Parts: sequence; structure tokens; C-alpha cells
Amino acid sequence: MEERVQISLLLDFYGNLLTEKQRDIMDLYYNDDLSLAEISNITNTSRQAIHDITKRCHKLLFQYEEKLFLLEKYLQRKKIIGRLNENIDMLINNTIDEDKKEILNKIKRDIEYI
Amino acid sequence: MEERVQISLLLDFYGNLLTEKQRDIMDLYYNDDLSLAEISNITNTSRQAIHDITKRCHKLLFQYEEKLFLLEKYLQRKKIIGRLNENIDMLINNTIDEDKKEILNKIKRDIEYI
Repeated sequence: MEERVQISLLLDFYGNLLTEKQRDIMDLYYNDDLSLAEISNITNTSRQAIHDITKRCHKLLFQYEEKLFLLEKYLQRKKIIGRLNENIDMLINNTIDEDKKEILNKIKRDIEYI
Repeated sequence: MEERVQISLLLDFYGNLLTEKQRDIMDLYYNDDLSLAEISNITNTSRQAIHDITKRCHKLLFQYEEKLFLLEKYLQRKKIIGRLNENIDMLINNTIDEDKKEILNKIKRDIEYI
């Protein structure tokens, strides 16, 4: 996985464990793809401070992942959900019974919320 | 949910964010149901320090939950999985086709790992 995507996902999972300022700066840097100089201007913070914050938060996010594995678990779950959907679609396409089809569609909707 | 059960689950989710000592003490107190005096003896730490650690970690665990909602999401997921299993069992019991039964059983096994 590309590092930018990885950091963006880690921010989704652990962003709330950062301070609001840290989260905002990481968001501008990794999600909005702004340069350190641009973030420095927007936030009225020195370029060096922005650099230090992104570096520190980068490390923090990976430390959280080493402890809680939320990204790893999410990726495993995503894989399983893909397989589940394939199998359910196969059953839906091979079922004539409308009641059974309805139950299979219910199952599919529930899986979306897992 | 009883508080002891709740703390025990929060320890499963966030225990790795505590120090090893904090985690051990919380485990002895909430999972093994030992008294402060017993934990004090085992860990060679004053009763007051054990009291302070359990109080502080209790607060920390709830703070993590307020930020990441892992327990809340787990309970929601558990509910959905219960409903999924009921629906799949219903389909299994009403299916004669062995191939379809096999796919439904595969789906059931996959759901266990979600």
C-alpha cells in the first residue's frame, strides 16, 4: 500500500488520539497534499514546527497500529467481506425463490454495516 | 452491561495502550477479581499505589473508548453477526441443494472471522 494511503487510513483509525492541531496538520499534509510551506502559512506556525509535528505524528500513528492493529484488522475484514459478497451474489443469482432472495439481500445489507 | 464486564472488554481493546505494569494490575483487579491488598502483596507495591493505578487506568480506558468507540462498534457488530447467523441458519435449514448448503456454510465460517 502506498504510504500516503496508509497514513490516511491510520488517521481515520487513530486521528482522535492526536490533538486537534496535530490532526488538522496531518490532514492538510496527507489528505489535502499541501506542502509544509503552505501549511505553515495557513496555520500561522513555523515551517520547522509543521515538519516536527508531521514527523512526530507519523511515528505516533505507527506506534498505535503496532499496539492495536486496527488497520491490519480492517484490511483482513475487507478481504473477508469481498469473499462473502461474492458468495452471496452467487447464491442470489442461482435462487428463484423470492423469499430466499429477500433473506440473501438482507444478509448483504447487514454485511455492509459490519 | 455490568461495569466489571465492561472494564474487562475495554482492557481487551485498549490494554496495549497501557504500560505492562498498569495492564497487569488491571487484569488482576478486574479479571482475576483480587483485592487491592492481594495485588499489593503480589506486585510488591503499596496498596495506595495500586488504588491510584486502577483509578487512573479506569479513567484512561473510558477516555480511549470516547475517542475510538471500539467497544461500541464491537457490540454493534456482535448484534449484526447474531442476525446474520440466524438468517443463514434459516437458509441452510430450508435448502436441499448440497452445493448451496456448502456455500452457506462457507459464508458462516467467514462471518466468524469478521
